[in-house]
Amino acid sequence: MNFDFSVFLRSDLPPPAQRWSAFPEYNFVGGHNDATGVPAADLAAAAQKVLSREGSTLATYWLESGPQGYRPLREFVAAKLEARAGLACSPDEVLITSGSLQALDLVNALLLEPGDVVIVEAATYGGALTRLGKLGVDYVGVDLDQDGMRPDALAVVLGDLAAAGRKPKFIYTIPTVQNPTGTVMSHQRRLALLELAREHGVPVFEDDCYADLLWERQRPAAIRALDDAGQVIYCGSFSKSIAPALRVGYVVADWPVLSRLLPLKTDGGTGALEQMVLAEYASGKFDGHVTALQQTLRDKCQTMMAALEEQFGATAEFEAPSGGIFIWITLPEGVDTGKLAQAALAEGVALNPGSEWMADAEAGRNRLRLCFANPSKETIQKGVARLAEICHRETGIPVRSANVSRDA
Amino acid sequence: MNFDFSVFLRSDLPPPAQRWSAFPEYNFVGGHNDATGVPAADLAAAAQKVLSREGSTLATYWLESGPQGYRPLREFVAAKLEARAGLACSPDEVLITSGSLQALDLVNALLLEPGDVVIVEAATYGGALTRLGKLGVDYVGVDLDQDGMRPDALAVVLGDLAAAGRKPKFIYTIPTVQNPTGTVMSHQRRLALLELAREHGVPVFEDDCYADLLWERQRPAAIRALDDAGQVIYCGSFSKSIAPALRVGYVVADWPVLSRLLPLKTDGGTGALEQMVLAEYASGKFDGHVTALQQTLRDKCQTMMAALEEQFGATAEFEAPSGGIFIWITLPEGVDTGKLAQAALAEGVALNPGSEWMADAEAGRNRLRLCFANPSKETIQKGVARLAEICHRETGIPVRSANVSRDA
Repeated sequence: MNFDFSVFLRSDLPPPAQRWSAFPEYNFVGGHNDATGVPAADLAAAAQKVLSREGSTLATYWLESGPQGYRPLREFVAAKLEARAGLACSPDEVLITSGSLQALDLVNALLLEPGDVVIVEAATYGGALTRLGKLGVDYVGVDLDQDGMRPDALAVVLGDLAAAGRKPKFIYTIPTVQNPTGTVMSHQRRLALLELAREHGVPVFEDDCYADLLWERQRPAAIRALDDAGQVIYCGSFSKSIAPALRVGYVVADWPVLSRLLPLKTDGGTGALEQMVLAEYASGKFDGHVTALQQTLRDKCQTMMAALEEQFGATAEFEAPSGGIFIWITLPEGVDTGKLAQAALAEGVALNPGSEWMADAEAGRNRLRLCFANPSKETIQKGVARLAEICHRETGIPVRSANVSRDA
Repeated sequence: MNFDFSVFLRSDLPPPAQRWSAFPEYNFVGGHNDATGVPAADLAAAAQKVLSREGSTLATYWLESGPQGYRPLREFVAAKLEARAGLACSPDEVLITSGSLQALDLVNALLLEPGDVVIVEAATYGGALTRLGKLGVDYVGVDLDQDGMRPDALAVVLGDLAAAGRKPKFIYTIPTVQNPTGTVMSHQRRLALLELAREHGVPVFEDDCYADLLWERQRPAAIRALDDAGQVIYCGSFSKSIAPALRVGYVVADWPVLSRLLPLKTDGGTGALEQMVLAEYASGKFDGHVTALQQTLRDKCQTMMAALEEQFGATAEFEAPSGGIFIWITLPEGVDTGKLAQAALAEGVALNPGSEWMADAEAGRNRLRLCFANPSKETIQKGVARLAEICHRETGIPVRSANVSRDA
């Protein structure tokens, strides 16, 4: 009776989705943010203002700004990057995208063909790895520490690839509030990375998605700001600083790159209402909002670190992140966080297993990423306690939680 | 000095974009709409209402509705389709997309591999043809007349493909206010199309993007509404009925199809503010707005038809569209509208040449599409007059305009 679509499907599709019901009780995955921090009233005021002034421009694709995106938003992005990332650029070098995910897709579509290779940080954004895998592109991870990607390790990887006759299409880096490690690449390392990239003639793709949430130290100049050869393609987002459900990101690149990216953006433009409201809101309120949000996130981060220490003790190793929304945790060798994630999800605790966030999946087997931005402090405490229970039951560790032996 | 990206680019990129400066003076291309008709104040009121009620949900990807999109908007879409297209469906069968262009991309990504073949209407949406071409997919056009795609012609195409051992992946149709012809497929033809699709076991992809702008007659039930086997994937959009710069469309399909589409939508969700504002606005105001918009468009359509008759006389053949925003025009054999479009653009008149809107590009050589929705009536009159001048200069026709010989 029912038409069978299965014979018509592409042969390489991902597995089917399950029906969605609700977020898990303890939602430590993804890039969700603090709900109390959403500036809803200010966004509404901005909507009122911008719609009454120029709402009729919604009648044309691209408003009256052309395919690069709403010009006042590009102007804000340029001003923000100059002020916050030391990156002087013109609104003509900015392309507004539908979230920074579209920025990744566009840059990938510009440069990558199956069989290509790119360089990434050893631990990096899982969504970037999935995309590369889907495109049939290989990736090689470069070790990183508290100062970001290690230049000596990068030199080795570049050398090895050159020896193998493979020229990487780009070096993908998240230098500021790195995902998932929460580290910040030092200024010296940025210079060293650029020098290696120049020496080997390899483009750099700088993903600065979380950079506005840096609270621990002075923000270093963006890598693109240190580059005078136009070798760096830069992207960022408002998802982390304002709200994830707003799908607005941006690419900054020189015109020879942008002019080739633009024809690949065949989506009829990025949602104009979101662009207009963001531009109107952000031009007056961005800095104040972000400062307040950092404080909220820092508090939640403290709460999660304290809960981890209490519940896991020395079994969970992590460094305090410099900013952002997550903590990158290493459990003892032998723990399989993929299995742990499944068991935990069944009991309402969602986490990102480390193997999805590392170039060498095996090296991420005993790691995990926990996002602290969305749950309340109480939920963080309860969720980490529940996770410790489940972890103990599944793996035998932690042996003690809150100084009480679990095996007693 | 400057880094040379050209050696890193994919080999199959489209040509680079030119820098955008402004819309042409006489903008008869694309799907731009009437600027006075944008309900800016009502959208602002909706933004105020929905943000004050549930603005904090912007803190999570997908709000609290899951990956299929904002649930109140899916509920509105379901109600609207039942009321206006006779298509009963549940919000669980609706997937909100970032414009109907993303709907095309997702359905293509679900079903198409290079070397596949699909069936389209002989004259059809240019963006659909471009997409198929980019994917390495062949397409075969089926003749259409004032009642839509001709079943006899479809039977021949299906038979020919079967004889050649090629099973088409789907039949793509825009049955209601067809793009570019402005025709409406009759109820009988819809049944005949479905029967042929069943006989040959071929899916149908129904694009109903312009259907809400039908003013000339009663809207027939959607093809999907006539199908009880789940063979039809349906898509629609708010771009034509509310505003093109809002990027919100939708797919309606059964769960076995949706569950495979969802994992392909890797964009972090469709812009939530646009979804929220649209749902809040549309639930009370959609029907009234669309009725008023139809009247505005119908007036502009009359203006353009009168201007064409005055300026081109019998040299420009066209049928009055049943609704929508464009007129599909045939000029005498020998006129090359591709060349005409270039010459006209240089003088501020933008038009869509027919070869980009037909499966057989050669058959579209002397045709063109003019969109009347965005320019004012005065601009339409002036623009058509200017086009006639340019056309006369370039091709020798029309010989007379406004009853005055141009050669006099």
